[in-house]
Amino acid sequence: MAKRRQSSTSPFIHSSALVETERVGERTRVWGWTHIQKGVFIGDHCNIGEHCFIEEGVRIGDRTVIKNGVCLWKGIEIGNGVFIGPGALFTNEIYPRSGFRKEFPPTLIQSGATVGAGAIILAGVTIGSYATVGAGAVVTKDVSPYSLVYGNPAFKKGYCCICGLKISFKNKEATCSCGRRFRLQKGQVLSV
Amino acid sequence: MAKRRQSSTSPFIHSSALVETERVGERTRVWGWTHIQKGVFIGDHCNIGEHCFIEEGVRIGDRTVIKNGVCLWKGIEIGNGVFIGPGALFTNEIYPRSGFRKEFPPTLIQSGATVGAGAIILAGVTIGSYATVGAGAVVTKDVSPYSLVYGNPAFKKGYCCICGLKISFKNKEATCSCGRRFRLQKGQVLSV
Amino acid sequence: MAKRRQSSTSPFIHSSALVETERVGERTRVWGWTHIQKGVFIGDHCNIGEHCFIEEGVRIGDRTVIKNGVCLWKGIEIGNGVFIGPGALFTNEIYPRSGFRKEFPPTLIQSGATVGAGAIILAGVTIGSYATVGAGAVVTKDVSPYSLVYGNPAFKKGYCCICGLKISFKNKEATCSCGRRFRLQKGQVLSV
Repeated sequence: MAKRRQSSTSPFIHSSALVETERVGERTRVWGWTHIQKGVFIGDHCNIGEHCFIEEGVRIGDRTVIKNGVCLWKGIEIGNGVFIGPGALFTNEIYPRSGFRKEFPPTLIQSGATVGAGAIILAGVTIGSYATVGAGAVVTKDVSPYSLVYGNPAFKKGYCCICGLKISFKNKEATCSCGRRFRLQKGQVLSV
Repeated sequence: MAKRRQSSTSPFIHSSALVETERVGERTRVWGWTHIQKGVFIGDHCNIGEHCFIEEGVRIGDRTVIKNGVCLWKGIEIGNGVFIGPGALFTNEIYPRSGFRKEFPPTLIQSGATVGAGAIILAGVTIGSYATVGAGAVVTKDVSPYSLVYGNPAFKKGYCCICGLKISFKNKEATCSCGRRFRLQKGQVLSV
Repeated sequence: MAKRRQSSTSPFIHSSALVETERVGERTRVWGWTHIQKGVFIGDHCNIGEHCFIEEGVRIGDRTVIKNGVCLWKGIEIGNGVFIGPGALFTNEIYPRSGFRKEFPPTLIQSGATVGAGAIILAGVTIGSYATVGAGAVVTKDVSPYSLVYGNPAFKKGYCCICGLKISFKNKEATCSCGRRFRLQKGQVLSV
């Protein structure tokens, strides 16, 4: 595949991509047939798959992976180290109608979170840090940090570690098989 | 982005789109990497997003918005002022198998309706005027006009206004916050 | 649309597709804006739709239909005569996180099976021969041959014939309206 590369740290933009912003970070890769509009900000070391669309005004942090076929609309902000699975869908209107413009409530995907393949995130939702939205989930309300949600509509089914694996709390303490430890305090997960 | 524009009323076709029909209406815009086959009819003032496919024989009315990644197969007809959300999916066979061709029951999306992001409409279904199919819904049977459906499978959860907002009937009468009024008569919603 | 065709049996590759493997079988067609990486094997008489991505290492049998917008990741194997509906999604990690690599459990779609539009197949699942996954299903565990599953999560709802139509067993015997006959023996469907 054809490549444009200027230096070892400059971003890679596939020759079939349409990138209209100049704010694509170091070593970030943008793959084929993806369109990124003016006024988009993308951090360093990201990987943006094929057939994506990123609309004016969207901000994406560092080390974030966006798989194929994802559209990010105005009003969506994505943190650092986020994983957005293939075909995950976002919206920016609650009651869309052709010919009727409404407000666009902002949607936020916090750092370290995962949005599974084909999951749908309704406009205005916040997905907390290190939360995991399961494949095919339809998320209609906020998801707290470290939570695991899935289903249509999505409900909370448990917790997950910074590394992504499931964790289970006993006496408000949990240890992931990766070694990381967590405490549950006033309903919030703390990394200890 | 490169453009082909002949006059102020002629359609806009993005240079990376493949448009094989000549029947694209006035001021309709067709975005990148979208393929529209011969024999498709598209009305005026429509907006067809990126990475779409519209198969021979499909008809689309005026002022209809089709967001990114939507495929419309032979047997699908879309009215005026319809909103089809990103990644909404249509089918044209009930029991598809490679190597076994079956009948393609027609699918109809009536004027003013909304199909939410990632919703799936099974072959043969009619979505009534001003109905709203929620994001991620899997629609297996007809949806009556002004109805709101969602879930997998989709069920009727209420009603919505011409403008798209939810409305609630009391004593068979409803007033939307936009000011429009409706009456419920023999199970049908009438705009009054 | 532009075409490259060398002989009556050579594959057809659309001019906008990026095909990096040389192992595309006879009479197989690959449509626009689809990317097939090196090291992919695709059999004869297949039809690969637009806006697809097929990653290195994937194997696809003969006479298989893959509709638009499907991504097949490393670790996925597809048999002969399979139908993959538009927008069907596959995954290759159970707990994906940006920056954390895990094992990729293999996913297998056996010959004659159907994966409906927008269905999601989790990593590590096997879909048995002639099974049908309904549109929008989220498949979290193996599906036995000839089974029909749908819903989120997907559950077994019945059986289907080699031709794709539903069949019902009475006294452990079933005859499809196409004439094919089946027997249920120790929980397994046998074609008789």
